[in-house]
Amino acid sequence: MNYQAILEEIEREILPLFGEGKVADYIPALANVNPNQFSISLQMFDGTSFGIGEINKKFSIQSISKVFTFTMALNYYGKELYKRVGHEPSGNPFNSLVQLEYENGIPRNPFINAGAIVTADSLVSIYKDNTFSQILEFIRTVANDETINFDGEIFHSELEHGFRNYALINMIKSFGNIHNKIDDVIKTYFKQCSIMMSPAQLAKSMLFLANHGENPITNEVIITESKAKRINSLMLTCGHYDASGDFAYKVGLPGKSGVGGGIVAIVPKKMAICVYSPRLNAQGNSLIGTKALELFTTKTGLSIF
Amino acid sequence: MNYQAILEEIEREILPLFGEGKVADYIPALANVNPNQFSISLQMFDGTSFGIGEINKKFSIQSISKVFTFTMALNYYGKELYKRVGHEPSGNPFNSLVQLEYENGIPRNPFINAGAIVTADSLVSIYKDNTFSQILEFIRTVANDETINFDGEIFHSELEHGFRNYALINMIKSFGNIHNKIDDVIKTYFKQCSIMMSPAQLAKSMLFLANHGENPITNEVIITESKAKRINSLMLTCGHYDASGDFAYKVGLPGKSGVGGGIVAIVPKKMAICVYSPRLNAQGNSLIGTKALELFTTKTGLSIF
Amino acid sequence: MNYQAILEEIEREILPLFGEGKVADYIPALANVNPNQFSISLQMFDGTSFGIGEINKKFSIQSISKVFTFTMALNYYGKELYKRVGHEPSGNPFNSLVQLEYENGIPRNPFINAGAIVTADSLVSIYKDNTFSQILEFIRTVANDETINFDGEIFHSELEHGFRNYALINMIKSFGNIHNKIDDVIKTYFKQCSIMMSPAQLAKSMLFLANHGENPITNEVIITESKAKRINSLMLTCGHYDASGDFAYKVGLPGKSGVGGGIVAIVPKKMAICVYSPRLNAQGNSLIGTKALELFTTKTGLSIF
Amino acid sequence: MNYQAILEEIEREILPLFGEGKVADYIPALANVNPNQFSISLQMFDGTSFGIGEINKKFSIQSISKVFTFTMALNYYGKELYKRVGHEPSGNPFNSLVQLEYENGIPRNPFINAGAIVTADSLVSIYKDNTFSQILEFIRTVANDETINFDGEIFHSELEHGFRNYALINMIKSFGNIHNKIDDVIKTYFKQCSIMMSPAQLAKSMLFLANHGENPITNEVIITESKAKRINSLMLTCGHYDASGDFAYKVGLPGKSGVGGGIVAIVPKKMAICVYSPRLNAQGNSLIGTKALELFTTKTGLSIF
Repeated sequence: MNYQAILEEIEREILPLFGEGKVADYIPALANVNPNQFSISLQMFDGTSFGIGEINKKFSIQSISKVFTFTMALNYYGKELYKRVGHEPSGNPFNSLVQLEYENGIPRNPFINAGAIVTADSLVSIYKDNTFSQILEFIRTVANDETINFDGEIFHSELEHGFRNYALINMIKSFGNIHNKIDDVIKTYFKQCSIMMSPAQLAKSMLFLANHGENPITNEVIITESKAKRINSLMLTCGHYDASGDFAYKVGLPGKSGVGGGIVAIVPKKMAICVYSPRLNAQGNSLIGTKALELFTTKTGLSIF
Repeated sequence: MNYQAILEEIEREILPLFGEGKVADYIPALANVNPNQFSISLQMFDGTSFGIGEINKKFSIQSISKVFTFTMALNYYGKELYKRVGHEPSGNPFNSLVQLEYENGIPRNPFINAGAIVTADSLVSIYKDNTFSQILEFIRTVANDETINFDGEIFHSELEHGFRNYALINMIKSFGNIHNKIDDVIKTYFKQCSIMMSPAQLAKSMLFLANHGENPITNEVIITESKAKRINSLMLTCGHYDASGDFAYKVGLPGKSGVGGGIVAIVPKKMAICVYSPRLNAQGNSLIGTKALELFTTKTGLSIF
Repeated sequence: MNYQAILEEIEREILPLFGEGKVADYIPALANVNPNQFSISLQMFDGTSFGIGEINKKFSIQSISKVFTFTMALNYYGKELYKRVGHEPSGNPFNSLVQLEYENGIPRNPFINAGAIVTADSLVSIYKDNTFSQILEFIRTVANDETINFDGEIFHSELEHGFRNYALINMIKSFGNIHNKIDDVIKTYFKQCSIMMSPAQLAKSMLFLANHGENPITNEVIITESKAKRINSLMLTCGHYDASGDFAYKVGLPGKSGVGGGIVAIVPKKMAICVYSPRLNAQGNSLIGTKALELFTTKTGLSIF
Repeated sequence: MNYQAILEEIEREILPLFGEGKVADYIPALANVNPNQFSISLQMFDGTSFGIGEINKKFSIQSISKVFTFTMALNYYGKELYKRVGHEPSGNPFNSLVQLEYENGIPRNPFINAGAIVTADSLVSIYKDNTFSQILEFIRTVANDETINFDGEIFHSELEHGFRNYALINMIKSFGNIHNKIDDVIKTYFKQCSIMMSPAQLAKSMLFLANHGENPITNEVIITESKAKRINSLMLTCGHYDASGDFAYKVGLPGKSGVGGGIVAIVPKKMAICVYSPRLNAQGNSLIGTKALELFTTKTGLSIF
């Protein structure tokens, strides 16, 4: 299949959508990006790649970081982790507190904010003061790139404006499902959200999930096959908040979005993809990114269904 | 792969679970089945099949019927259908009214009762008095078996005891999302739920979804490839009520369960499966059936992820 | 105090509000009333009365009937009744199903529809086929007027359009909190709602509650002092759906409204009042009626607080 | 009426209930009180008083403080305050976040924690750094007692363990309904909750509400008659969290409880009462205190209904 030609076709077809959607504006550092960016990076198992747009320009990965931290926590805790965070779709917006109250502080899944905060807490229990550097180290390993880092301005902006996340962590703590100091956990969480990566780096960093736990380029085994499949299933059912069903329905690939405008997706046994375009739809997912991936599976027939 | 040997292995391994779970008892006709039954049928594209247990013994398909009626409605209405029923996981039990009230009578998806009732209503708008015979005809076609029929005793039992479903349909009607007479629609719905099929028949009837819309045995095109994939994605994200995420996580196949004790699942481009065992877990899905399918994908590596 | 002068003052002051609000239109029989009517009747313990407008013109009492049926049920069952219906404000609209699902079919109070339906069911358990005639008889007694009856057209309209109430009763039945046939109970409920009374009749019919259970004119004891006080407290905390707090806050009298446009209220140890004006506010209470009562307690200082 | 004799009768009758209920234990400072205390203070307009138990022993007033801060805020802002906090019963536990999310950060009423926090914020907007000293000053004025102060240990305990309140304030801030720094507001709120008063002081401090806004002993006008009545109505409909309806039903007086074990209540135009007994019922109100007040209105006939 001529992937490069397909990407170019997609670029032409999504042109009429530019201008729709709205860049995340809850912190100034995100609000100030150029809203009309669009890029895709495809990474194959043999190291070849395809792309359009500025595939090496970094952006804030935000919730995509939840895939990395959940991988780390699942690797360490295994099934024990399920006692503290579930793996069911929530049917609610990403930052909802409602379900948390009815379900005694056990978040539905690790990809809503509440679940990612509990996941971060579980990592703080292991790595203490080194938690964030371990997360960064893990991402550098799976992306095979030592230059990845976080953005201090975005981090501080989140710290100052993240009231809803403070509400979530305090709520969970009130149910006893946060074991460490709120301050330590929330800082870890906000730092992981402010990590900067390019579409090319993100696509590469997802290859191990497309390849059953093993990075196909470095041959490093990151996680067992069985756990890799479970992470993929979780991306499919819960990767896009309350638009997860719609993404599965229209795109048909395991994926994870972030309010920074990025979406990663994997085609099992074939490739990893990252799309970037910062304008978001009503559910907080990249509007053009979602559409581009829908066109991609329609044109290639690569949906997992 | 020696599927027959794998099925026998599964049968041995699930033995310790017999006795767990509880047969649906909200109507006498369901409560009176032998609780310790267990059977699996595997149907391949070339007509070969594998099985254990009484794969030709019929049981009440209940919610599995929702896959057939949604296929019919999607085929007829296409995207228009989404205005009346969504495709997002609900995060709530199968018969919940809560979301319906907050979301103005638009059910989250066609696989919760509310959504299946709206789907039935959409078919009554097309086929009027012939709706149920058209549904039966459709199922006979996809299963390639003219003997399939419904059970009058179960139907009447549902009519007498289905208060929650009457609550749902009246609630939806109050929002204007039922277009026909409540009596006509609810009877159609209860009749489709009381259809009796065997594991072998059900597995065969799902082959068109595993084969992108075309029945691989009769070569009849039932639905377009694109729509078949969407139905599969919906089975993955919403096929098992508020245990859908868990099923995707552990089994990793599109599937649909019914409180009669059946679960159907498909392996895209390969086969269709039906498991039957009437004791249910807390979410209303066959307890042993779910476990058997988990063992199946673990042993065969056939998860879609 | 010159009550007649005060009523006339109120009439002048509420003039600018005519035209605001909307007549109940869910059934034709209610929608067709003249929207600009306004009347008040004050009934004193000694038989004297004051009034403005057409105080002898009948209208559909709707939810005001809940006060009568609750009085009958409380009289018969006493505390036993609390097992089936509570006495807490619901914080939700009058026809909400949400709380009912979370709270296993036990309605919060007898003045929301769900609670009134359970109350009607409790009366059907006592009076069987004679339930409605007993209700009518009770109302005729407390109002001291044998001419009171129901409106057949409104009753049939409710039967045909009352989907939300059918949803409620089926929901409650699914939890086992309806003991009789749905049809018998819902007909009783719809009939009680379609009873026609004039402001003068309604005000008279509330005198026993203002006078600690004894009708001050006929000297008949309807209910014990203790129970009369409890009914009054319930009218204060729950009498106006999710605007009950606002009514208590601004008017400060126990009262009960109906979507027909009537509001009854009592001044303990002094009098009973009925206001009628069919345009409703957003919570389904008479807009002008509420304002008129607010002016009345402001001008007279007769709030219970 | 011989109030002293009635109080002694009540004391005898509630004896069998000692041992039921559970002292608040979310902070050590509250958990360590003697659970078997019981005292009542009645304060009349002419300065006479009645009492049983240690009516001069101080305890933590907790949520009773919400009456004082709401009085201050209503006095200053009038109707403007309603834009930020409602006056409807919530139908939910005192620390629930659910409604807050559905209703965009506008608390239902000032007597649930969320509403009291918004009220505290509204005072911080007026008094800045002096807010708490102004609150203390206000309470000293209405109680006519300069010795009233807060307990530093309780305050610090709340600061350390009040995760649910931190969740609430951050949630409200995320909707823009907290105008000052979270730290300043929450400290004010926790300090007001840790104020220590005796039953005699509390009863005296409520006299102005029983007397239409004017302290009957000092003749100081604290608030207008109309506002005093509104505060009383709010105590009746919302003073006891999700047991407010039950309190109105059984006691029939405007009142406010605190988890410290105190309940204040007023009899309009007659007296103010404070009961203290630290064991709480399931809704967080003094179990024996509630029962004692029920006996009081039953024996005296002083219910407002």
